[in-house]
Amino acid sequence: MAPAPRTRLDPEARRAQLVGLGRRMLSTRPLDQVAIDDIAAAAGISRGLLFHYFPTKRDFHVAVARSAADDLLTRTDSDPDLPPTARLRAGVEAFVDHVAENRAAYVAFIRGSGGGDPQLAEVYDRTRAAFTDRVLDGLGVPPPVPPRLRAAVRGWVALTEEVTVHWLTPGPSGGGDLDRADVVDLVEQALVALVTMATGSFPPATEG
Amino acid sequence: MAPAPRTRLDPEARRAQLVGLGRRMLSTRPLDQVAIDDIAAAAGISRGLLFHYFPTKRDFHVAVARSAADDLLTRTDSDPDLPPTARLRAGVEAFVDHVAENRAAYVAFIRGSGGGDPQLAEVYDRTRAAFTDRVLDGLGVPPPVPPRLRAAVRGWVALTEEVTVHWLTPGPSGGGDLDRADVVDLVEQALVALVTMATGSFPPATEG
Repeated sequence: MAPAPRTRLDPEARRAQLVGLGRRMLSTRPLDQVAIDDIAAAAGISRGLLFHYFPTKRDFHVAVARSAADDLLTRTDSDPDLPPTARLRAGVEAFVDHVAENRAAYVAFIRGSGGGDPQLAEVYDRTRAAFTDRVLDGLGVPPPVPPRLRAAVRGWVALTEEVTVHWLTPGPSGGGDLDRADVVDLVEQALVALVTMATGSFPPATEG
Repeated sequence: MAPAPRTRLDPEARRAQLVGLGRRMLSTRPLDQVAIDDIAAAAGISRGLLFHYFPTKRDFHVAVARSAADDLLTRTDSDPDLPPTARLRAGVEAFVDHVAENRAAYVAFIRGSGGGDPQLAEVYDRTRAAFTDRVLDGLGVPPPVPPRLRAAVRGWVALTEEVTVHWLTPGPSGGGDLDRADVVDLVEQALVALVTMATGSFPPATEG
């Protein structure tokens, strides 16, 4: 969307435009350095008008983080008609590729969850919870999910994030000795190992 | 250490006092809200003198984070004379207990690694790397460590952190249905499952 000074947009379109500009900036800097003035200038609107849509800088940042999180969840939502293991693999591949293509923005999202902002921490927390629920659903585990299994899967979500981000980290401490297939295999097999550990089988026996 | 206006301390003791005050504040607020003025007042020194020891607020925050990280690594370093599995369990128990006793400060440390500060991110990254190396060392894996095994253990460190912090999170989305022993068992068994997945055995065969 090219900067178009004084273009009239309806409120929904304007909000979407501003969040989109924020997300593009997120690919080159952390969330807390996405400056309101730069966003307003890129949108061709006044700072005051931006604050009409997002009352505080924090509200804007939360909206940007939510949009990034929703996008991540959408892009990694593999075909529900696939068999569970194929669906898992497709989801893991989509996650690894999405993070690889958007490493800076993704790390900014993780890191932006910090800084002590409870609303941002909640966006991040809900994203991990959504991944956890999706995996449990894909495994055919009906509620109530055993707490041990839920914790194992939630831990796996964190493992997946760490292994993927670390693999993409440049330099000697990074994980550059693995290739994409190694990472996908490792993450996929880790879920099998952890679910088997937590429940005794993979997929888990479904006795509620 | 009670506030003692105008007490003379040698530079090392003064630095340690200031970092200690910062760490105590970290237990009630995130790192970026640990205010220099409050620290100086609690130490009974001027803001200017504090900046003599730590040229910028960021330098001070990095020193506080390093101290918290060193302390975490020291407290979880179990007796090297224990057999590997007992040492692992003792280390996991120490980690879970330390985080349980210092939840707010620990989460502040994790979160403080964000906000886009590269020095803080590095403190956090080095801490995860140190845990990874310690586990690999405890497993008797000589360098060069196979990249797949290193990635699995690093992922386990992230899993351990997530499972422990989530367990301690209050509210319906938290992991309150598990008790301490469940968490320790889960984390310990997760390492066995992940190392076995990565190498085919636990402890891993040591063929370099």
